[in-house]
Amino acid sequence: MSHDVAARRATRTGRRPGSVDTRGRILDAARSSFGERGFEGTTIRGVAARAGVDPALIHHYFGSKQRLFVAAMEFPVDFAAMVPRLVAGPREGIGERLVRFVFETWETPTVRPLIVGLVRSATTDPVAATMLRELLAAGPLLALTHAIDRPDARLRASLVGTQLIGLALARYVVAVEPLASAPIDDLVRAVGPTIQRYLTGDLARGEAAPAADPED
Amino acid sequence: MSHDVAARRATRTGRRPGSVDTRGRILDAARSSFGERGFEGTTIRGVAARAGVDPALIHHYFGSKQRLFVAAMEFPVDFAAMVPRLVAGPREGIGERLVRFVFETWETPTVRPLIVGLVRSATTDPVAATMLRELLAAGPLLALTHAIDRPDARLRASLVGTQLIGLALARYVVAVEPLASAPIDDLVRAVGPTIQRYLTGDLARGEAAPAADPED
Repeated sequence: MSHDVAARRATRTGRRPGSVDTRGRILDAARSSFGERGFEGTTIRGVAARAGVDPALIHHYFGSKQRLFVAAMEFPVDFAAMVPRLVAGPREGIGERLVRFVFETWETPTVRPLIVGLVRSATTDPVAATMLRELLAAGPLLALTHAIDRPDARLRASLVGTQLIGLALARYVVAVEPLASAPIDDLVRAVGPTIQRYLTGDLARGEAAPAADPED
Repeated sequence: MSHDVAARRATRTGRRPGSVDTRGRILDAARSSFGERGFEGTTIRGVAARAGVDPALIHHYFGSKQRLFVAAMEFPVDFAAMVPRLVAGPREGIGERLVRFVFETWETPTVRPLIVGLVRSATTDPVAATMLRELLAAGPLLALTHAIDRPDARLRASLVGTQLIGLALARYVVAVEPLASAPIDDLVRAVGPTIQRYLTGDLARGEAAPAADPED
């Protein structure tokens, strides 16, 4: 509360305002707004009101709504650190381990608005779409499929991405039952084998068939 | 062209305007706009300009943007007719048959803007979200899982829905490679077994095998 007042006063008087705390509060407010309304439905004015700061302060820190979005969507989780952890352990359990890791991460209060905001925004905003494209086909999933070292790493990463994003959309954005309220354990058992096959299985691109393969 | 003029004139003079043709042209324009911009980014004025009619005509026919959306999203495909066709034939090929049917349908020029528009709009608009929820967990997919008659029909339908919608998002909305340009045959081979397991397999809800292979 007194933070808000201080931040507003600081902006008016031109002093540098409350630093990390204020910036963090703006980012929290932005994440909530992008999560609830998506990119198009979010305004800097609305984020400012939610954070209890002057809109000018947001312009000062972030410049534009798009840069605010990029800053707000920075995941507070080190996904790179996940890869060795997932690859360690029995190969045949890697699908289930990934599904469990992903849902446990997504369902922490700091991450959930991010994933929802990203899906909500990516369908209409180009910057968000690029971020989602990265998340689906590059980034940590591609690092994981490279570590697993099977052919078609990029295809595998993107297939895993489609299943996980489809689940995020169904569970968090449009709330489809029974998925929306299924325990994570149920999701792990239902979806783990899908992810396992995408990561390590035969995607039937040639290696499967008895008759000679025409492609790839 | 003369249609446009006629329609505008008809509106101005209060006569009933150009009927099915005009209505169809408005719906085509609406589908394109919802597909490109989503619900929030679409305006009745923009749809009118695209269709070459007076905005008043759209209000006259559809009342509101939301009702225009609902009318525009009516799929020109009889999905109910698909169920017996998919269920006929070898049970173990049903996953691949569904994936092929879905992508061949989605990629017809009349349907593609619908699925893109629905995904683009469902992330922010409640009516579109309800339609997507229906599509994912009820409607034709639930009819299919009921026809297949395995336990957990609703869970199976919604899991199939998440994988298909995740693919639509990746392939059509954010254009993730290699999925965006993969031939349908490749998608069928890569994703068919996932859908097969969701439709007919053991989802490991208690009945799971102790040691044997978890897949297929």
